[in-house]
Order: sequence, then structure tokens, then C-alpha cells
Amino acid sequence: MSTAGAPLVGIVMGSKSDWETMRACRDTLREFGIASDCRVLSAHRTPAAATAFATEAESRGIEVVVAAAGGAAHLAGVMAAHTVLPVLGVPMVGWSLDGLDSLLATAQMPRGIPVGTLAIGKAGAVNAALLAVAIMANSRPELRQKLKDYRRQQTDKALAETLD
Amino acid sequence: MSTAGAPLVGIVMGSKSDWETMRACRDTLREFGIASDCRVLSAHRTPAAATAFATEAESRGIEVVVAAAGGAAHLAGVMAAHTVLPVLGVPMVGWSLDGLDSLLATAQMPRGIPVGTLAIGKAGAVNAALLAVAIMANSRPELRQKLKDYRRQQTDKALAETLD
Amino acid sequence: MSTAGAPLVGIVMGSKSDWETMRACRDTLREFGIASDCRVLSAHRTPAAATAFATEAESRGIEVVVAAAGGAAHLAGVMAAHTVLPVLGVPMVGWSLDGLDSLLATAQMPRGIPVGTLAIGKAGAVNAALLAVAIMANSRPELRQKLKDYRRQQTDKALAETLD
Amino acid sequence: MSTAGAPLVGIVMGSKSDWETMRACRDTLREFGIASDCRVLSAHRTPAAATAFATEAESRGIEVVVAAAGGAAHLAGVMAAHTVLPVLGVPMVGWSLDGLDSLLATAQMPRGIPVGTLAIGKAGAVNAALLAVAIMANSRPELRQKLKDYRRQQTDKALAETLD
Amino acid sequence: MSTAGAPLVGIVMGSKSDWETMRACRDTLREFGIASDCRVLSAHRTPAAATAFATEAESRGIEVVVAAAGGAAHLAGVMAAHTVLPVLGVPMVGWSLDGLDSLLATAQMPRGIPVGTLAIGKAGAVNAALLAVAIMANSRPELRQKLKDYRRQQTDKALAETLD
Amino acid sequence: MSTAGAPLVGIVMGSKSDWETMRACRDTLREFGIASDCRVLSAHRTPAAATAFATEAESRGIEVVVAAAGGAAHLAGVMAAHTVLPVLGVPMVGWSLDGLDSLLATAQMPRGIPVGTLAIGKAGAVNAALLAVAIMANSRPELRQKLKDYRRQQTDKALAETLD
Amino acid sequence: MSTAGAPLVGIVMGSKSDWETMRACRDTLREFGIASDCRVLSAHRTPAAATAFATEAESRGIEVVVAAAGGAAHLAGVMAAHTVLPVLGVPMVGWSLDGLDSLLATAQMPRGIPVGTLAIGKAGAVNAALLAVAIMANSRPELRQKLKDYRRQQTDKALAETLD
Amino acid sequence: MSTAGAPLVGIVMGSKSDWETMRACRDTLREFGIASDCRVLSAHRTPAAATAFATEAESRGIEVVVAAAGGAAHLAGVMAAHTVLPVLGVPMVGWSLDGLDSLLATAQMPRGIPVGTLAIGKAGAVNAALLAVAIMANSRPELRQKLKDYRRQQTDKALAETLD
Repeated sequence: MSTAGAPLVGIVMGSKSDWETMRACRDTLREFGIASDCRVLSAHRTPAAATAFATEAESRGIEVVVAAAGGAAHLAGVMAAHTVLPVLGVPMVGWSLDGLDSLLATAQMPRGIPVGTLAIGKAGAVNAALLAVAIMANSRPELRQKLKDYRRQQTDKALAETLD
Repeated sequence: MSTAGAPLVGIVMGSKSDWETMRACRDTLREFGIASDCRVLSAHRTPAAATAFATEAESRGIEVVVAAAGGAAHLAGVMAAHTVLPVLGVPMVGWSLDGLDSLLATAQMPRGIPVGTLAIGKAGAVNAALLAVAIMANSRPELRQKLKDYRRQQTDKALAETLD
Repeated sequence: MSTAGAPLVGIVMGSKSDWETMRACRDTLREFGIASDCRVLSAHRTPAAATAFATEAESRGIEVVVAAAGGAAHLAGVMAAHTVLPVLGVPMVGWSLDGLDSLLATAQMPRGIPVGTLAIGKAGAVNAALLAVAIMANSRPELRQKLKDYRRQQTDKALAETLD
Repeated sequence: MSTAGAPLVGIVMGSKSDWETMRACRDTLREFGIASDCRVLSAHRTPAAATAFATEAESRGIEVVVAAAGGAAHLAGVMAAHTVLPVLGVPMVGWSLDGLDSLLATAQMPRGIPVGTLAIGKAGAVNAALLAVAIMANSRPELRQKLKDYRRQQTDKALAETLD
Repeated sequence: MSTAGAPLVGIVMGSKSDWETMRACRDTLREFGIASDCRVLSAHRTPAAATAFATEAESRGIEVVVAAAGGAAHLAGVMAAHTVLPVLGVPMVGWSLDGLDSLLATAQMPRGIPVGTLAIGKAGAVNAALLAVAIMANSRPELRQKLKDYRRQQTDKALAETLD
Repeated sequence: MSTAGAPLVGIVMGSKSDWETMRACRDTLREFGIASDCRVLSAHRTPAAATAFATEAESRGIEVVVAAAGGAAHLAGVMAAHTVLPVLGVPMVGWSLDGLDSLLATAQMPRGIPVGTLAIGKAGAVNAALLAVAIMANSRPELRQKLKDYRRQQTDKALAETLD
Repeated sequence: MSTAGAPLVGIVMGSKSDWETMRACRDTLREFGIASDCRVLSAHRTPAAATAFATEAESRGIEVVVAAAGGAAHLAGVMAAHTVLPVLGVPMVGWSLDGLDSLLATAQMPRGIPVGTLAIGKAGAVNAALLAVAIMANSRPELRQKLKDYRRQQTDKALAETLD
Repeated sequence: MSTAGAPLVGIVMGSKSDWETMRACRDTLREFGIASDCRVLSAHRTPAAATAFATEAESRGIEVVVAAAGGAAHLAGVMAAHTVLPVLGVPMVGWSLDGLDSLLATAQMPRGIPVGTLAIGKAGAVNAALLAVAIMANSRPELRQKLKDYRRQQTDKALAETLD
């Protein structure tokens, strides 16, 4: 499936080790023919670059930003603070506490700066892509149709599961 | 500010007692001139009505669904299962556990059906409105401008805070 | 032991991967000569099929529904919303948080729609079967006797444990 | 509504202070015309009486036992260990931890002795009654009909909620 | 070291699989020359035998009861309910939740029936033995001296640790 | 009831505000005619005095040390590190987290230095007294009898509870 | 006590409502004659101002930065990302979860950007001041002496506590 | 890089098994040319040695104390109680609960005795070193420069990460 053209989704993650999980986000977008710009950007180690990415995203044609981080996961919050684009957060399982820390640090954003938080780990990575598609589909009828097809196939596949 | 015209956002909540919190979502949308359709719909006590609301939302012109519930908060998941529109979830503080139960029941959606989860309680109610606006602003330049203005005023107000 | 005849218990699970755990539920029922109808049904990916299963269970002769799911585990709640049969929930360990998410999402049902929740994982899978048997035994004296025999053997086996 | 005749449900609770919550269980059963035998029985302070209650429940015509306790909530487990009747547990909010302790102490029963656990507090108290009714309705068609009526009224009432 | 004579400590555990951990309790007691009576006794699967053990412990010369269990760990509570001897509880890591369930189910005993709870797992198993020794040492000067020697050796060993 | 003579139990607490809870420990001991030495001693603000209390307890005739603290509750651990007497810990509800912090900080002692931990708050305060009595009763037959009488009265009182 | 001269400590907080708690930090510093610069700065609503504060702190003579925030508490992390000065974080109790969210979001910083986290709430506010004093005292003998005096008075005051 | 001369940082840990994690603290300090004195010291098994280390640290020229422990992690608190030097705590993952116990036992210090707590495990070990460097850099311009260089390299390295 072709994903030529400028990326519509920015996928940023706090560490290269998150890529193993977040590749599923990129791949799911590709299934819908949507290109993404994937970067390692840390709220803490590369704050200027992270801020710049968020600030410039709109003018670069990005429509949705997906941010993934573990531990005291601030990356999605940094993105949201510097853009009015929809920002989605994916909590990564970090080095302890099984992702509870990153879930709370991503979801419990104070009033005024929203982050739409998905599930911890790979389920969240795929769902961030699907929610981004749903958002972009609001103004792209053909994408909405693709989403419905995707859902139908997903349903059919689940219904075809057999148990021994 | 006028919010005439068909509602663009559906706001559903599991119990009338959630309205005290979710009114902030409706009111924030109104600040942007966006009408919403607010309903008490329970995933458990009114499943057929909840399913119908989600199924028909797209054809009724709804662009974003916001669902709020407490405890074993399934309402956002039910919405997401029956529409390809973007669904946002707001965990309510229920009768115990301080909202941890509803946060996990809303955010930990399995792969395939996404819910963008906001913070527990009123912060999440306001932020669901702001994220919905951000989503709709992708195809409405004037709304995006309003969102930027809102952010600027929010920043100015925060900077004007003084401490004794 | 023969388990011929129509199934008295419906066992549904959100993902085929839950079968490894829930097979213990089916097998325990078989020890009592009770047939079960086991299905992969997702509250989210196959909501119509899940609803249909619950709605039709009573007329098909099902007496107890057992539902197992992980993460934001809504399956038992969906079952309970669409049938007045007793519904038992088994929280599965999902992809993070060690089952705490599915336990809360299954047990913290709001007033009006009950789910009887068992322990996380395989202990819960077996106990769901035993509780289903206890429920059905209320009107089947021979099943109650079998349950007493099962308990006695269980006690005897535990008492025979020796420590080196 | 008449609730004459021998009680079909035993409701036991670890402390008199639980009665404020568990009265809702008794009252819900009364709505279905079902009498209950309500007792303060502690797994720890009155173990012999608790054991006796469980042991004799079946011969006394009890069909379901509901047990409520807070903290290290062992009462439902004690009931389940001494009867093959279906046992339902209702975690009470104790003196700290907001009911998490009693939820885990009630739900995490080991393999072999099942307890069907409801939600923490009053929601669980009502739902224990409803699940008990569902269990008893398996062999009482008129009770099943009452349960369907109850559900319908509940749905109607929820649908009639209006928001200002 | 001789541990002849009647056992002074009863060590009970809910499952044979706990023995891998609780053997450290028995072995630590042996280091002090104290015999123990080790049994698999379940609050749930063998309640009569568990109750009998607790009830008869005093007359058999037992001075301290140590009880280990996982999940909804009720065994220490059952012991404490049936004897006035000091009862110590050791939470086992069960099949999920990393021991948090058994810690809460052991420690959060209601007013009136005390259980002295040790750490989760092997640290708790050893410490239960040491606390039992401390209890028995109150009336046995030679045991108190042994405990001081044990502590001194423990301190010396820790101080001798070197880091590369 | 007379509690003349040297105190047999040392009750230490990290803050004067704990006294409201721990007075129940002192009072319960008094019901058994046992005097206690109650002190505000902080592991952190008065470490030398805390260490001295623990070190000298044995020679002063103390037989059991009870330590209560909130937050990062180290007091029981400090006691246990400086005496071979049995040390019991009572977690206080501190300024946040509802006592979970103090429970973990008291119970999760590493191998080698035991603390017998009771429940959070007042239930734990009373039970620490009762466990201390049980420990001292091992060498005092009249105290053991008193403990049995106390239990019997407690049982009788619980059995006399009536529900309206 | 005079606190003339340029502030040595920057105290920033995410919301004016935090000032009720953080005033104790300012006041404790004043007891040591240390002036502080107190500001409401939000990582999310005023990111540019927050970044500027951190970036310029060193050149303005600030030696320690204290940051307080609730919920998804990112403020201390933002500070630490933009300065090499020591940054201390104080988790505020937010609108739910009793401070667990802000504690994890402050403490679980990834490798490379440190934040020294104090206790949740007012205890942490005071301790952040004391740790800042300890840091500054490393190169100011008279401050170290003041700190020792403060500790001594604190100890004396604790030792003077009497229990009725 | 030379680290000759007296150690400026004391690194203490409760168990030799913590060295695998805490070596990263020592190594990070070495990168800045700072020597450290690393010891196994237990708040519980070697309290006198732990107290002595803290008491003498200042006179030995130590400027920062780093303390690492698991479970009921009291070591940092003991250090802080016996010195006015800045004390940093690193929670270790212990034998259960994934480090939540040690995080709470380290961070939730009561008012009056501060510990600056870093993240659980290796991230915290490295960050404790970096925060110690930041503290010492307040009076050592060349060290502050090194810290800035370290940060710059860290940023450059992160920015150079590429994703396939």
C-alpha cells in the first residue's frame, strides 16, 4: 500500500527502545496508506527538539501527534503544550511498576492541555494509530470507509476463531 | 456565544450524577460555539439505547463522542465498539478507589478498538471538550484559530497569577 | 464422563489467547458431566455477536454465563446487560498491570447489573466452573451430591500432602 | 410485598456497622418477595457461629449465601469453605485503603472454593441481591419474570433521566 | 543441631507449593534448635483440619503459630480465630498481583483478632522464624543469648561484604 | 484494674498526633492489667533517643515493643534493629495514600530483622496490644486465662448484635 | 529574620492552589534567612515561561529549583531538562488518587535528567526547603551551623512531647 | 579520568545484591572525576555502622550521601537522620511489589528530615550521581561546565538515534 506524500502523523517516542513497541503504530497507519514521521525525542534529554517538533507540526502538515514514553512519561504533555493539534499518548512499560507510572503520568493531565491516552504498550500503539485514522477520517470519506472495512475484517477474523 | 445548529459532539454519561462533572465538558464546547447532545446512557442499564446512540452518531452529524462513567466504566468502550468516530473517555470518581477503577476500565482497551482517555473527573471533562475541539479544528480553520486564542488566554491568565 | 446434551453453561472469552486459561473452566464442568458452549466473543471487536449470545442464552437452555477478558475487561458486563441469567466474570492477566485492570473492570459493576467475579486467571477459571455447578445444583440434587463428593476428594487430597 | 415463609438467602456481615450498607441487599430481595436471614457473624470473632451458619444453611432451606466484610475480609471465604451453596461476597470499605483490601481478600480465592464477588459497598450490596435472585430464578419462572420486569423498569427509569 | 522433643512452633501453609518458601522458616528455627510441626492446611479446602490444628495447638505445647498463604490469604486469620497463641502471618506471592493481595488479606485483620504479619515471601518466612524465636526467648534466657549471637553473626557477615 | 509495677510493653510513636490512635493500644493493655511506657520517639527527628529506648528496653524489663508511625514508617524497623525483643509495628494513616505507604514501610522488612505488622490504624493499635498480651501470656498462665475470657466476651458481644 | 538580597531558591508551582501547601517551603527557607523567588508556572499552560525560568535560573543566581505539581506532574521534569542546577520535586495531592499520580510522575524520571523527589504535600514542601538549605550549606559554613541548630531544636521539641 | 583524592560522595546500599545496580552510580561519578566511598550498610543488620557512616561523613569530607535499599527501605532515612549533608535515596526493586514498597519507604519521609528520592533502579542510580554532581557543582565552576558538556553529549546522542 502506498504511503507516499508528506506524513500526516508525527510519532515521537522517548527512547529508541520504545520503537519495538511503536513500530506497530507506524505499521497500522501504513495499512491505511498514511505516512508518519517517526522520531526519538525526549522531553528531558532533547527538550528543544521536542518543543520544536510540536511547534512546527501544524505548519508541516501533521494532523495528529502520537507520543510514547515510559516512567515519568512527560513527552505527550510536552507535545500538547506546544501545539493545538490532537495529541495522543501511549504509556510504555518502563523499568518498573509495569506501566502504572507512565499511564498516570500520561493520562492525569491538568485542565487546559488535553492528551488522549491509549492503553499501555502494544495495544495502545495500535490503537493510537486507529484513533489517529478516525480523527483524520472526519474530513476524508475514503479513509472512513477504509476504517469501516478494517473493523469488518477485524470482526470477521475474531468470529472465525475456533477453540479445540 | 451561539451554539445553534446540529450538535457536533455527543456527550454520554453512565449516571445522572456524572452531570455535575460533565457539565464542564458541555460548557467548554459552548465557549467554542459548538453544540453537543448530552445524554444519560448506561452500558449496562440501557445497552440498546447506548448502542443505538453510537451506531447512529455518524449519520446524525456527530463528529466526536465523549463518554463518561465510573467504576467498571464500560461506556466509552461500548461507544467505540459501535462507531468509527473518535471516542474520548472520561473516568469518573465512583463510589470507591478514587477513580483508579474507572481509569483502568477506560484506558486499558484491547487492540483494535481505541478510546482516547482523559484525566479522572473535571479536569478530564474539560480536556475532553478541548481535544474534541482540536479534532474538529483539523478541518475548520476558524475553530483552530479559536483554540489558539483560548490557549493564549489560558496562558495569560496563568502568568497573571500572583502569590502573596 | 458423558457430557452429552445441550450445553448448560456458556463460556465466552475476549481473545483466543484466553483459552489456555479458560480450558480449565470447561474441563472442570466436564468433571461434573456438564457440557458448555465455548466461544471467542469480544465486547469490542464482535459486539453484535456478543450481544446476541447473551440475549439468546436463556432460550437456548443456558443457565449460567461465564465471561473472561483482560485489560478493560467489559465482556462480563456486556453479557450481564443482555441477560437475566447469572453471569460470572473471570479477570484475565492482560498485557500489563498483572490483572489488576481486569479485576477492577469486572468487579466494580454499577448498581443494577450484577457480575459475580472470581479470582484472576486459572484459579478463577476453575472456580467459575465450580460456582456455576453450585448454582445449577440448587435444582439438581444429584449435582449437589457430586459437588459434595468433589469437595471431599479435594479435602482428602489436600490432607494427604506431605512435606519433606 | 409479602416475604413470608422461610428465608431463601442468608446475609451475613462481619460487623454491625456493615448493616447500613447491607440493608440495601435485604431491601432489594424484599422487592422480589424473597425473605432473608440477616446476621452479624465474624469469621474472626465468632468463627464457630459463622461455621455453623454455613454448615446448616442448606438444610435450613437457604439457597444463596451473601457475605459482607471489610479489611482482611475472610467471611465469604469461610462461608464457601463450609457449604456447597453458591456464596456471593460483598467487599466493604473498611477503615483504610478504600476497599481495595477487602476486594482482594474476597475475590482472590484460591482454586477449589469459589466466591462470586460483587462491587465494593452499596453497589455490591444491591447487586448481590440481584445475582441471588438470578440464581434462584433458574428454577422459578415467576421470579425470572419479575427480574425481567425489574430490569425493564430500571432501563425505563434511566432513559427518563433528563439533563438541564 | 538437635531439635529433638515436641515442636514449639506450628508452621501451616495453604498449599504444598508454599513449602519451597516456608522451608526457610523451618530451617531458621532449626538453627536455634527449635522443632516445628509443618503442615499443608487450607482455610478453604481443609477448614476442619485447620480449625483443629489451631484449637489443639496450645494443649500440644505449641507456643507460636506461623501461617503462610497466597491470594485471599485467610489461613493466618483462621488460626488466630481459634487460638490465643501468638499467630504470625507470611504472605505468599500467589498467581498474580505480586503478593499485594496476600499482604492485605493477612495484615488488615479487624480489631479483636491479631495476626503479626511479616514481609511477602522468603524474607517473611525467615523473619517469622526469628520473631517466633524472639517470642519464645522471653522465657528462655539461653534462647535469647542464641538470638543475640545470631544477630551478631549477621552483622559481622554484612560488615564483611566487599564491593569490587 | 491495677497496672502498678514496671511497664512490660514499650509503646513508641513517631508523632504526638499518633497518640489519638495509639491510646487504644495502651488502654487495651490496661484491660489486662499491663502497664506500658508510652513515648513519642521519631526514627528521624530523635534517632538517638529511639535507639536508646530500643537498646535499653530489655534491661528495663520491657518484654514487647510496639512502634507506630506514618508515611515512610521506619520506627518499628529502628526498634527491631536495636533489640532482640519482639517488635510489633502499627502503620498509621499519614498525610496521603491512606496508609499504604506506612503498611509497606513497616511490613516489608528485609530478611534478618523481623517486625510483626498489624493492621493500619486503630484496629492495628488494639491488635498490637492483644498480640503483645498473647506473647507475654506464653509464660503467664493467668494472663492466658484473661485472654481467653476477653475473647469469650468479644464473641458474646458480637453474637448479641441485632439488626433492625 | 532578614531575607534581603537576591533569591537563592526558585520555587515554582503548577497552580495557584498549590501555594497553600508550598508557602511552607518559602517560610522554612525564610527561617534560614534565604530568599526565594516564588512563581506559578505550568509545564503545560505556560511552557515558554517555565522553560525560560529554568534556563535563566543559573545566571540569576538561583542555586536550587523546587518544583511542585499535581496529577501528571511534569513541572519538575521541565525544570530539570532546562538547567543543570539541582532540581527538587514536591508531588501535590491533585484531584484524585491521593498523590500517587504526582509522586510517580515526579520520581520516575528516566536516566539522564535527575529530580530529587520529596514526600507528597506539606511534608515534602518543608523538606524541599530543608534539602535546599543542605545543598547550599555545602559552601556556606554558617548555613550548615544554622541547619544543625534547626535539627537540634527539632529534636528537643520532639523529645519534649508528653502524652496524657 | 582521574578520581584520586578523598571521596566526595558516600554510596551506601542495604545489600551486596544492590551493587549490580548501584555500580552505575559510582561509574557515573567517575565520569566526572569524582571519587566515592561505596559500602554495604544496612539500616537493620548493621545499624551502628550505618549511623557511624552518616555521623562521620561530614568530617571525612563527604558532601553528598546516596543510599539505596529495597523493601522497607529505611537506609536513606537513617542517613538523613544522622547528618545534615544532602541525602539522596535510590529505591531498589526488592523481592516483590516491583519497587513500589521501596519508593514509598524512601520518598514519604516525614517533615523535618529530607531525602531527595530518585527513580526506582538503575535510572535512579545514574540520576543520583548526576544530582550529586549538580549539588557539588554549585561551588565548583569546572564541575558545572562538565555537567553542561555531559548534558550536551547526552542530547546529541539522543538526537542521533535513527529508526529503521
